[in-house]
Amino acid sequence: MIATKGYAVHNATTDPTPWNFEHRDPGPNDVLLDILFCGICHSDIHQARNEWGNAMFPMVPGHEIVGKVAAVGSAVTKFKVGDSAAIGCMVDSCRTCPSCKAGEEQYCENFATVFTYNSKDKQGNLTFGGYANHIVADEAFVLKVPGNLDLAAAAPLLCAGITTYSPLKHFGAGPGKKVGIIGLGGLGHMGLKFSHAFGAKTVQFTTSPSKIEDAKKLGADEVILTKEADWTKNHIHSFDFILDCVAAPHDVNPYLSLLKRDGVYCTVGVPETPLSIQAFSVLGRKHVTGSMIGGIKETQEMLDFCGQHNIVSDIEMTSFTKLSEAWTRVVKADVKYRFVLDCKAL
Amino acid sequence: MIATKGYAVHNATTDPTPWNFEHRDPGPNDVLLDILFCGICHSDIHQARNEWGNAMFPMVPGHEIVGKVAAVGSAVTKFKVGDSAAIGCMVDSCRTCPSCKAGEEQYCENFATVFTYNSKDKQGNLTFGGYANHIVADEAFVLKVPGNLDLAAAAPLLCAGITTYSPLKHFGAGPGKKVGIIGLGGLGHMGLKFSHAFGAKTVQFTTSPSKIEDAKKLGADEVILTKEADWTKNHIHSFDFILDCVAAPHDVNPYLSLLKRDGVYCTVGVPETPLSIQAFSVLGRKHVTGSMIGGIKETQEMLDFCGQHNIVSDIEMTSFTKLSEAWTRVVKADVKYRFVLDCKAL
Repeated sequence: MIATKGYAVHNATTDPTPWNFEHRDPGPNDVLLDILFCGICHSDIHQARNEWGNAMFPMVPGHEIVGKVAAVGSAVTKFKVGDSAAIGCMVDSCRTCPSCKAGEEQYCENFATVFTYNSKDKQGNLTFGGYANHIVADEAFVLKVPGNLDLAAAAPLLCAGITTYSPLKHFGAGPGKKVGIIGLGGLGHMGLKFSHAFGAKTVQFTTSPSKIEDAKKLGADEVILTKEADWTKNHIHSFDFILDCVAAPHDVNPYLSLLKRDGVYCTVGVPETPLSIQAFSVLGRKHVTGSMIGGIKETQEMLDFCGQHNIVSDIEMTSFTKLSEAWTRVVKADVKYRFVLDCKAL
Repeated sequence: MIATKGYAVHNATTDPTPWNFEHRDPGPNDVLLDILFCGICHSDIHQARNEWGNAMFPMVPGHEIVGKVAAVGSAVTKFKVGDSAAIGCMVDSCRTCPSCKAGEEQYCENFATVFTYNSKDKQGNLTFGGYANHIVADEAFVLKVPGNLDLAAAAPLLCAGITTYSPLKHFGAGPGKKVGIIGLGGLGHMGLKFSHAFGAKTVQFTTSPSKIEDAKKLGADEVILTKEADWTKNHIHSFDFILDCVAAPHDVNPYLSLLKRDGVYCTVGVPETPLSIQAFSVLGRKHVTGSMIGGIKETQEMLDFCGQHNIVSDIEMTSFTKLSEAWTRVVKADVKYRFVLDCKAL
């Protein structure tokens, strides 16, 4: 067993505290990763505080994991000791259903996706995430990180990056298309970067005048302030795709009026309260959909794309001793634009 | 002016009563239709009772109109006196925007669709529908009715028919696809007939055990009773497309669980209360959308398809003197499956 130090939550009312635990010894297909950095995702907080009602404790959060390969199993072919490598939101799946075979393991139709933490592996053991100094995973679910990327700033690509890359790619963001990004936070700022890099005309929606300049620097061709009266008026029927990166409940119907016929609104923000959709808002074959991270093959494609285009997340570094403060700021959306834990300071 | 008799509603608290009014003289491109039959659509009642908040009075409802051409303007080429012809939900549009040019006039991006009643034409005059003995319309919005179809039973094709045909066609209902129809009423029974005729494996969802036999007769390969406990259990991830024909508010989230990844749920029932969609219900790129009737070109295609496959609506005949009773029964969903007014009995 691999003795590991990490930060764990032991019930829904606590923040993570130091905890010594063990990972399995690497099997023939496994990689042991020495974790360098782990991004802080809002979903870490939702899960640790059991806001989605599915928490299993003890929980070591963290699914934006970057590190160095410290050991490999005998059958591992993709990695050697010393390689930079990354683990995102999944560490296994059924691998046999149509979605898994299509490389969309996050939509495993046998509901057998094993998430990086707060999940049970095929042996029934709880999985533990990246707020720690080691992790063991099957190489099929471990990613290569292009050498030119800053490893700390690359960590959030594993969730915030793929979560926005996948739907933008799937729904055709590119030249000749007009794409809107709702919210400029951890997800939104990555969506903005990718949509711009794909060549789409990219519009940032925000309630904050203070974010206009940042949005333009990050790649927005236009910024629309959604707190102004009649803000939709000049933009009706003009968008091909709108990616909603906001987790707080808000009215999505105005955004639907901005879509062209057959246009798509996609949430990745996953508000806790249901989306309230007027039937009339979708009658012009406007689509409301949602997307969840991306498959392993597409995550590697995203990382390679980031290497080619020098895309990483804008981050603030933090440490385990400041974790409580960092979580508080994440909940207040007070971070530009993603906290990353320095796991070597554990 | 064409002196016309009809049934009109004069305010939101009355049912239609006899009314004498006038249509414009047919212009060069116009057709004067001697109305034989008019289907009763639930939306007639919503609009006459101002349940959608946009009623304009006096209102002559009716947009499932079949009759004989009584006169044609000098430039009319498609019709001659004596032809069977039909008018559906629209009588004009801007004709210049991308949607109109694509033959999707119902989604006119200049919001210039002129509906058959409760709408204003380009001259600013109120339009009057098919609860009458005449109507005048531009031939571009008048349809040909295949000679083999029963004219009374063909009337509901102009709304209930095209409303279900269009999304089934657009979203690819056909061989190898599994399609669900929610609700077996005016819309649902047409959706069932079309999906079956397109060659899709067609499943009827209903709350009523009494409808099982009818659904099978109308083309259902399977009927799922949605009031049974765990009714979704054996059908998760199995549907390509689900067409929701129910106007009464109901929970759509269980149906979303039945869709495959990238599957589509489409409402044509247009409930008055918003659809309440859990973000988690759409995360597997499940689509929630809505569709409204169909374009003129597609409506003609649908009528021709009905001619080739001998498809009409299952109807009960009624008359103006029994209109109040018919409306009451429509609201109670107590009709198999569409009332048609005999307009010659006016």
